[in-house]
Amino acid sequence: MSLLLTLFQETPSEAAKVLEQVNGDMGMLWMLLSGILVFFMQAGFTLVESGMTRSKNAVNIAMKNLLDICVGSISFWLIGYSLMYGDTSNGWFFWSGLFQGEGADLFFQTMFAATAATIVSGAIAGRTKYTTYIIFSVVITAFIYPISGGWQWQGEGWLTKLGFIDFAGSSIVHSVGGWAALVGAIMVGPRIGKFVNGKVLPIPGHNQILATLGVFILWLGWFGFNGGSQLAWGGADAVGASNVVLITNLAAAAGGLGALITTWIWYGKPNLAQTLNGALAGLVSITAGCGNMTDIGAFFAGLIGGIIVVFSIEIIEKKLKIDDAIGAASVHGVVGVWGTVVIGLWGINGDTGIGLFNGGGASQLGVQALGALAYAVWAVVLSFIVFGILKATMGLRVSKEVEIEGLDISEHGSIAYPGKRVREIDEDR
Amino acid sequence: MSLLLTLFQETPSEAAKVLEQVNGDMGMLWMLLSGILVFFMQAGFTLVESGMTRSKNAVNIAMKNLLDICVGSISFWLIGYSLMYGDTSNGWFFWSGLFQGEGADLFFQTMFAATAATIVSGAIAGRTKYTTYIIFSVVITAFIYPISGGWQWQGEGWLTKLGFIDFAGSSIVHSVGGWAALVGAIMVGPRIGKFVNGKVLPIPGHNQILATLGVFILWLGWFGFNGGSQLAWGGADAVGASNVVLITNLAAAAGGLGALITTWIWYGKPNLAQTLNGALAGLVSITAGCGNMTDIGAFFAGLIGGIIVVFSIEIIEKKLKIDDAIGAASVHGVVGVWGTVVIGLWGINGDTGIGLFNGGGASQLGVQALGALAYAVWAVVLSFIVFGILKATMGLRVSKEVEIEGLDISEHGSIAYPGKRVREIDEDR
Amino acid sequence: MSLLLTLFQETPSEAAKVLEQVNGDMGMLWMLLSGILVFFMQAGFTLVESGMTRSKNAVNIAMKNLLDICVGSISFWLIGYSLMYGDTSNGWFFWSGLFQGEGADLFFQTMFAATAATIVSGAIAGRTKYTTYIIFSVVITAFIYPISGGWQWQGEGWLTKLGFIDFAGSSIVHSVGGWAALVGAIMVGPRIGKFVNGKVLPIPGHNQILATLGVFILWLGWFGFNGGSQLAWGGADAVGASNVVLITNLAAAAGGLGALITTWIWYGKPNLAQTLNGALAGLVSITAGCGNMTDIGAFFAGLIGGIIVVFSIEIIEKKLKIDDAIGAASVHGVVGVWGTVVIGLWGINGDTGIGLFNGGGASQLGVQALGALAYAVWAVVLSFIVFGILKATMGLRVSKEVEIEGLDISEHGSIAYPGKRVREIDEDR
Repeated sequence: MSLLLTLFQETPSEAAKVLEQVNGDMGMLWMLLSGILVFFMQAGFTLVESGMTRSKNAVNIAMKNLLDICVGSISFWLIGYSLMYGDTSNGWFFWSGLFQGEGADLFFQTMFAATAATIVSGAIAGRTKYTTYIIFSVVITAFIYPISGGWQWQGEGWLTKLGFIDFAGSSIVHSVGGWAALVGAIMVGPRIGKFVNGKVLPIPGHNQILATLGVFILWLGWFGFNGGSQLAWGGADAVGASNVVLITNLAAAAGGLGALITTWIWYGKPNLAQTLNGALAGLVSITAGCGNMTDIGAFFAGLIGGIIVVFSIEIIEKKLKIDDAIGAASVHGVVGVWGTVVIGLWGINGDTGIGLFNGGGASQLGVQALGALAYAVWAVVLSFIVFGILKATMGLRVSKEVEIEGLDISEHGSIAYPGKRVREIDEDR
Repeated sequence: MSLLLTLFQETPSEAAKVLEQVNGDMGMLWMLLSGILVFFMQAGFTLVESGMTRSKNAVNIAMKNLLDICVGSISFWLIGYSLMYGDTSNGWFFWSGLFQGEGADLFFQTMFAATAATIVSGAIAGRTKYTTYIIFSVVITAFIYPISGGWQWQGEGWLTKLGFIDFAGSSIVHSVGGWAALVGAIMVGPRIGKFVNGKVLPIPGHNQILATLGVFILWLGWFGFNGGSQLAWGGADAVGASNVVLITNLAAAAGGLGALITTWIWYGKPNLAQTLNGALAGLVSITAGCGNMTDIGAFFAGLIGGIIVVFSIEIIEKKLKIDDAIGAASVHGVVGVWGTVVIGLWGINGDTGIGLFNGGGASQLGVQALGALAYAVWAVVLSFIVFGILKATMGLRVSKEVEIEGLDISEHGSIAYPGKRVREIDEDR
Repeated sequence: MSLLLTLFQETPSEAAKVLEQVNGDMGMLWMLLSGILVFFMQAGFTLVESGMTRSKNAVNIAMKNLLDICVGSISFWLIGYSLMYGDTSNGWFFWSGLFQGEGADLFFQTMFAATAATIVSGAIAGRTKYTTYIIFSVVITAFIYPISGGWQWQGEGWLTKLGFIDFAGSSIVHSVGGWAALVGAIMVGPRIGKFVNGKVLPIPGHNQILATLGVFILWLGWFGFNGGSQLAWGGADAVGASNVVLITNLAAAAGGLGALITTWIWYGKPNLAQTLNGALAGLVSITAGCGNMTDIGAFFAGLIGGIIVVFSIEIIEKKLKIDDAIGAASVHGVVGVWGTVVIGLWGINGDTGIGLFNGGGASQLGVQALGALAYAVWAVVLSFIVFGILKATMGLRVSKEVEIEGLDISEHGSIAYPGKRVREIDEDR
């Protein structure tokens, strides 16, 4: 816990006991506040996803994001926490019974599960049945995310034992969500009008200011996401968590700038949507390594993440012809892998380099690559199975008519901006 | 304060003094941060109320919510705090002079007073004079809310002495605001076009995405609202406040899910506006009992709250023919009562059941019902008197012409979205 | 640090060491959380600026605000921190080498630098080249703000030695940003259609609800801005920072109310945009004095600030014929001066009056005026030089055609609300 503690006698003095008590209390405060910040990310996702897609599906987006936090809070409390942090005999599966977590710890971890689910909702926006989404949301928060999360964060998982590092979840949360989003986008298929006669048509969002606000909220929440993953406060932990927040911000700034400049060169103009994705990519880039990176290392991790995301979105859309409505697979999946492996390139452990380029050899890079691959395989296979079963049984997509009219009316019976209808009612009065 | 303290000698040691000092400091930090979160709820109310009503009155909604925090901050500092937490000889009225509160405590309590006022503004949206609203906002933050608040939270009030429990204000804040909202809605009368020839017509809001963002902000702020009501941090208080936040989230999730499912069954489709109300209802349901409920108890309190709110809104609108524009009386008033009495059904006190269904007998239920009734009577009678005097003197309603045109132009001289007008100016240039 | 510390023996006891350690840890937590709140102000500025200007330039506003936080985070980390808090031999210039700050302190200070830059972006909205803005944003965060900031906050600067007080930056941050905004607005010139044939025409914003949300977010962030400037927590610092937050809220409330009433008297109706500016003015009014003011003093500082801002905006627009698109020069520049000098009128230092009207004589007032003047001269001269060079080389303004069409399409290749275009695409399908 604290360096001071070690200065005290073997039989802990009263003062040492006080310090231990207070450090525990401060750690709980920091985790609780961090969890509150991560909760707010749900609002950020809602705004980014609805702002970057069309207004006729905005109610559906809101309903999916609300569902994620509702279902995620309940399923992770019921079984997810136990599947992630329960006892294990083999390092692959974990269980200690129902209703295992409590207090600030369960609260904080719950918000991570809800985040993993939410990543999926944007990619498959505009054509997916709400019932289908509900089932997938339950499965990812109750099973897919917690089981593989335990491999690393339970403390005795097989990836932990190999020395894998993923401080706040570039792989565990973001790439798992991102790969599930990619599988979902493939299996649901593209929106009508996205790929027409071999041409890739843009389907612009409806409100870029809401999307911008959403990214600011996500950036804000990420300070809790990464900083809270220190799981403690006091002494070296206080210094550590502060540094995590500092370099998280640096990586986000570098990612935003990287994408801004890349789009300026590539498209001829600095593009807002991609700059927003770049900032998010910067954040994902530092999520695994925020406890194992210098500030300069974080800057370059974020900068490169912001460049990668622009090209990844282009390739998935234009080369692979996959319709990921908001680029979630790129931001969270592809860049999640980047954030994981960059630790093997220029990561540190305290004052020691553990990356290939700072004298640490190739072994950490190998472990990071293995871990990133393991999460990708897990998320892709499980998502394929779940979406496959759903497709074969209840179906994934709404009808063509519903899709063209917008999901809001047929799936939820209301529209996001009923202004026009209201004005007509007025004229009748 | 802390369990550790009791381990020390009778003459407190240096270490014990340090612990006491630090616990005090941490408690102040938690209350201050909680107050900051509760402040943000004003933004949430603004978005929910404006998003769920029509754009021609959105400026008016913003001006009412701004007024609530401005007036509430000043009036509660001037006299409200003293009326709530001052000395008492009888347990019903309290006073210690002007300008009594200070620091984090006054800040935190001020935000509660502003919340009580804000609840009213949504219910009477779209037809109430701004001048009238100002006076009611002053009266509720300076008199109605603080006087009855003292009955319980001052510590020597008559309800405290009876054993009434309202940890964070299901009755004290929410039902007082909700019943005042109901009285306001009745006395101001329905909006033109709401009830026509015996038919109840919908008047949909203008922006459901802003309403969704508003609910996320309220949910966020509620972690401070309920968690900060622990009023301390450190040792058992840290564990207690963390648990409060955890089960507050569970109840909100359950409330959202309860309303979502209810509307799916009742209306045939999962409805966004009601799911949003359900999440808020879940939060109100756990506000009184968040220090006296298991996690499973909180789940069911919220779930039932989310179901109640759907039917309460239907009944108030369709059976009672009262035009509460955003359902404030249901969310805060009716569910506020539910949140208060549920403690008497399955509340706990530490490890001891105090509710009817967990071996606690009926006495707590009786006290909870009495308290809920007392706040309802107080709020209804006082609101009736104040709105009655205002109606008899300056009038409550704007003219028919102003109401049809929207309050924004005649009351405030500007509109929320001047895009169209701007484009016309442009074309003239 | 803490009063308790002084009670301990000369050789610090174990308990005293624990208290010192914990106070340091709590201080770090408070600064980190405050920095997170200040970060969120960037979202607030984005909403206020875009909401109060026209939709055809909203993407440009978002891109400027994103740039500020990206560029500010990097440039302040690279050199700004060192230029502000580095070693000095003369009290005017400071330097300790590249990459000097760290942890919570650098994070917190970075957010202040980004804030100073952001103030400029609103004033020159709607006609300024993006390239020009980028360069100015770099210069203000890397040079203009940090150099003059060091005069006071480095601790050995010439203004510190004179006894100048600017607790959280009414002059150091806000008036520097505000005067730079004024110079920018003058040198870029008014928007087309603002001043036509001697008449001053209104160019209303496009979304007053987003602007309102923005002000609530700024108000929220300001609790960190002012409260975090205590730079510590524990004992007297905990009480001090709590009081700072309390009176910051009071001043904001008074400022909002002051502007609301002023516009009611002056324009005949309570005006939303000015009430929002009034709340911000209240916040700027207490930013310098939030550690040196009673609650009643803060109330009047804010109230008068809210009145000043209404007339300042009128005078700058209608008498001086300067087109400051959102009133930034008034809110931050003029009221920043007011917030600085009011300490010389009724400021306190502990229990001692230091202002002219509370027995402190005129000397503090003189120092405050001198400091305010120094920051004004510095910001005006430097901004004039930088904008002058930019005007002479690359030019400040977009073409007339671009300005009329809106900057979003030509500068960024996309529009904020592509709804209409999307509906047309739909009809073609």
